[in-house]
Amino acid sequence: MQQKIRILGISGSTRSASLNTKLLHALSKLAPSNVEIEVLEGLEKLPFYNEDFEGENLPGSVAELRQKVGAADGIIISSPEYNYSFSALTKNTIDWLSRPYSKGVLSDMPVAITGASPGVLGTVRSQNQLRQVLHATNSKVLSRPEVYVGGAHAKFDEDGAFADEAGRDMLIQLIDNLVTLIEQTRENLPSELAS
Amino acid sequence: MQQKIRILGISGSTRSASLNTKLLHALSKLAPSNVEIEVLEGLEKLPFYNEDFEGENLPGSVAELRQKVGAADGIIISSPEYNYSFSALTKNTIDWLSRPYSKGVLSDMPVAITGASPGVLGTVRSQNQLRQVLHATNSKVLSRPEVYVGGAHAKFDEDGAFADEAGRDMLIQLIDNLVTLIEQTRENLPSELAS
Repeated sequence: MQQKIRILGISGSTRSASLNTKLLHALSKLAPSNVEIEVLEGLEKLPFYNEDFEGENLPGSVAELRQKVGAADGIIISSPEYNYSFSALTKNTIDWLSRPYSKGVLSDMPVAITGASPGVLGTVRSQNQLRQVLHATNSKVLSRPEVYVGGAHAKFDEDGAFADEAGRDMLIQLIDNLVTLIEQTRENLPSELAS
Repeated sequence: MQQKIRILGISGSTRSASLNTKLLHALSKLAPSNVEIEVLEGLEKLPFYNEDFEGENLPGSVAELRQKVGAADGIIISSPEYNYSFSALTKNTIDWLSRPYSKGVLSDMPVAITGASPGVLGTVRSQNQLRQVLHATNSKVLSRPEVYVGGAHAKFDEDGAFADEAGRDMLIQLIDNLVTLIEQTRENLPSELAS
């Protein structure tokens, strides 16, 4: 029997019609039966990162998020591009997950990134900056495929499924490669930690 | 008589002992008598940027911030570096100020950037990413001096003044160059707008 793989989706937007949230839900529909992709909610309720809140003052929302992400096998981040970069919501989520220093749950975590926009560039500038951030967090970031979902407003059907065939193949490849990376990460764990 | 120049300081941190907030206050002390540098407060009360809140639903805090920044002559941004990039608080402030598209108050705004950290690199990676963001906002970003305040925890005296002589000269140069940029911007305005 194939082992269940649990992936969390982080959307960098809470806009009601967010293309990036839509993209994560579409990815969830494309995942094979042994892979579950759950889109995280409520990230906009975290405070802005502030070291004063670490330790005794840690907000419950942060503690809960760290625990949930720490228990996951991998992450897919889909952020809108604002001003050639990722959203503050994306960055804030990553910053909280990256601390405390050297104990953050993003370290060694398999991560895939993507992003959707109405324009043709599909968040390429934002994703480039995000790769630098995820290098800092010591995450295992998938290099390929690079998935820049341009013209995204026209790529979902009424049920929210991804309707563009070439793009859909890339999304499936993104999940496949992330799953492979997760499996490789597990194989490298000491056997008592692999589960 | 020299014309009064009003500059707003944006700190990317609300930590109580923030080195970046301290740096902005130290800059304020170094400004010549005709230049006022006011450090903005309460930026952590803005919601995360969300296009759904534009128009009728615009939070009062955002409207107030846009008005205040729009009335200023220039800005100095000092952001901490988290994970090789600017803080979410910095990015969120900029994103709100950059909208609505093509009408944001950051367009053509003279902006100086700096940043402080305890390590030796002094936020250089964060500032490099920030320059790309401020290119997107069409701001007039000062290229020189580049001021990376490393070892910042040891560079303030008991009253919060900047105590490192070589660094102080660079900070004074930063203000001088920003003031020159502001004056050049004014000269290029149609005369009925210059005030």
